[in-house]
Amino acid sequence: MVDLILVQLFALILLAWIAALVCDRVKVPRVIGEILIGIAISNIVLNGTSLFSALQLGAPDTSFVFKVFSELGVIFLLFAIGLETPFTELRKVGKMATIVAILGVVLPFIGGFALLILFAKTTLEAMFIGAAMVATSVGITARVIKDLGLMDTIEAKVIIGAAVIDDVLGLIVLAMVTGVAQGGTLNLIDIAVVASLAVVFVLVVMFISALIPKARKRSQVQELLNKSSTWKHWSPLPFALIICFGLAALASYLSLAAIIGAFLAGMLFAEFRDIWPTEDKFAPINEFLVPFFFLFIGIQVNLSSFSEASILALVILVTAVAIITKFVGCGLGAKGLGRKSALIVGVGMVPRGEVGIIVASIGLTSGVLDNSLFSVVVAMSLITTLISPALLTFAFNHKNRGKKRKMDLDKDKLEIDQI
Amino acid sequence: MVDLILVQLFALILLAWIAALVCDRVKVPRVIGEILIGIAISNIVLNGTSLFSALQLGAPDTSFVFKVFSELGVIFLLFAIGLETPFTELRKVGKMATIVAILGVVLPFIGGFALLILFAKTTLEAMFIGAAMVATSVGITARVIKDLGLMDTIEAKVIIGAAVIDDVLGLIVLAMVTGVAQGGTLNLIDIAVVASLAVVFVLVVMFISALIPKARKRSQVQELLNKSSTWKHWSPLPFALIICFGLAALASYLSLAAIIGAFLAGMLFAEFRDIWPTEDKFAPINEFLVPFFFLFIGIQVNLSSFSEASILALVILVTAVAIITKFVGCGLGAKGLGRKSALIVGVGMVPRGEVGIIVASIGLTSGVLDNSLFSVVVAMSLITTLISPALLTFAFNHKNRGKKRKMDLDKDKLEIDQI
Repeated sequence: MVDLILVQLFALILLAWIAALVCDRVKVPRVIGEILIGIAISNIVLNGTSLFSALQLGAPDTSFVFKVFSELGVIFLLFAIGLETPFTELRKVGKMATIVAILGVVLPFIGGFALLILFAKTTLEAMFIGAAMVATSVGITARVIKDLGLMDTIEAKVIIGAAVIDDVLGLIVLAMVTGVAQGGTLNLIDIAVVASLAVVFVLVVMFISALIPKARKRSQVQELLNKSSTWKHWSPLPFALIICFGLAALASYLSLAAIIGAFLAGMLFAEFRDIWPTEDKFAPINEFLVPFFFLFIGIQVNLSSFSEASILALVILVTAVAIITKFVGCGLGAKGLGRKSALIVGVGMVPRGEVGIIVASIGLTSGVLDNSLFSVVVAMSLITTLISPALLTFAFNHKNRGKKRKMDLDKDKLEIDQI
Repeated sequence: MVDLILVQLFALILLAWIAALVCDRVKVPRVIGEILIGIAISNIVLNGTSLFSALQLGAPDTSFVFKVFSELGVIFLLFAIGLETPFTELRKVGKMATIVAILGVVLPFIGGFALLILFAKTTLEAMFIGAAMVATSVGITARVIKDLGLMDTIEAKVIIGAAVIDDVLGLIVLAMVTGVAQGGTLNLIDIAVVASLAVVFVLVVMFISALIPKARKRSQVQELLNKSSTWKHWSPLPFALIICFGLAALASYLSLAAIIGAFLAGMLFAEFRDIWPTEDKFAPINEFLVPFFFLFIGIQVNLSSFSEASILALVILVTAVAIITKFVGCGLGAKGLGRKSALIVGVGMVPRGEVGIIVASIGLTSGVLDNSLFSVVVAMSLITTLISPALLTFAFNHKNRGKKRKMDLDKDKLEIDQI
């Protein structure tokens, strides 16, 4: 079985690399190429076999290994993003991020619920679809922003801050609908417990991060760090991995997404950047693991399930509502940044990625959603995910073109002045 | 299940890190700490549960993931070692490495075979135990040499060169004994096919590496590399991973150990170090994955199986013979380097590690070895693996102390001269 994994790794990395080189050539984010290669692997059939079957990617043992690789890829990606988002900077955008997150949760939930009721579905089904439309998947957006080299923009900070808050809100909504699905009624106490645990977890880690710079300023702590030179000889990687996996596991345990813990761990570690620089250590690990996350998003797409007309119509409408409500809600929340920046934030919050898929699978296993509604949610998650890199690249370019035109004008003016 | 993996990763990395810090403190290679922590995890029982059970490390899905992590760890380790062993340098020690390898295969096989015949075992059993004593596991030695920062010594080159050749010879011996076990007689044609495939594979890759510098000197190729600046913008990591997994898979397919392919891939890639520097990219990936290989060597040790006196006696004798024959054979082969260097080579070739364990498990599944003989081989592999880091550190220090004493004497002389 280990031999099989070697062949699979060889083939997947080779395909992802070819896709990446093509993307570089046509100047689109590599993410798009990786997802499209994933779709090709499982959907293009030659001589009766897809590459998915030829490579035996469905073999139970090795498919679990790739599930773990994908999960580690997105965990390390969020850790690396956390490393570039010190708490002090996140606090600057905290208020706006909260408004963006709240509007970006309320509008999609209401929109999704209303649409499904119009389609004559049950209240419970409509609630689940609404819940699946709530949580933004920050992985895609963050990767695109990283690929474009724009992690230090205010828009990036608002999007990432809002995505973290939005995941906590999404959890509360999910807890509500599963509560209704299981008990038939809302069990307010259970929901309150889950929701407050999640909020407390995020706030405690953020509070600790906020304390670190102050604590380090006090002479004793700083002296201890300076005095004992052994601290500086440590490679920071194992320490960073321990904190990353520790908080990711803790987040999972509190039924939050593991990536929230990884992001908070990165944020915590960012406070020690001066003595333990970790970015360069995570970059190659991420270069190895992150493509698996995007490849496997693509591999999960089954194009043939959308040949039925009614399903296709629902897919189009649910996706349109998911995009519009999120875009409008988050864009409105960020309107204080100016029109072009609000456009970026609105677009950046659109992808639902794996979060929507997870909600849908809970709906499927709890018997609320049937297979066709499940497919609709998966399609919505994937379409929002697929379109957003292109839209986000466009939105950033749109803003920079404006800036560049202004700069060109200034330059012309300067040249005229010089003459 | 992914949640479980996060907790397991957190715990294993934490334990390995504590062990590493303790090893740094008492100045022994980290490998020893990692293996001992592995033994502790599966053998120390508190309140009726070992940490192995508490962490559910035996869960089928996650245990396969860690098997893959271990395998990737040792593959990347050998790739990194290959990167530091350009073919031109290996050729310098080629003749001596071949002699070291041949003597280090013949003596242990004869020694093991004779000992088991003395213990009244069957010819077939004796042949299998002899075969399990043949192949050196270069992983441990290479890691210790790397930890000591001595990869560029002549002894390191001889050891690694000999270990590669020795693995090819070990394969031929294994092919012979399995041939006898299956057919009852030697099928010379089959053995010749397997053996020549292996030799051809190694020679072809080495030949290609030898051609690269010449080919690059020719203007066209070098011009192509220089002209198109896109080559230099490529991150070398995916390309390196593709070659590494490709040759590792090919080696597996030829029933060679995958690590041989990875080593050859590293050697091939070393010829492009100037345009695609990869060492810094592999270092963090290895820092993450390699400890799993050594942790899981430790975890496989079951201390309780050695409570039976006859088994214990056989373990001691087989281990003693394995150490002495390998040490004497390889030391004799390297005597041209001087006494102290021959000592280093002799000691460096002692560990059998996973190669011996693989041979034993083939013996077990083909019905030749019973469970107790299998345990004996596992114990021999582990003991030779466990003692060699300490012995190798000692042997290198012994050599350097001699050098240092001479330097101190020279320094004293110099100071006297100055007065």
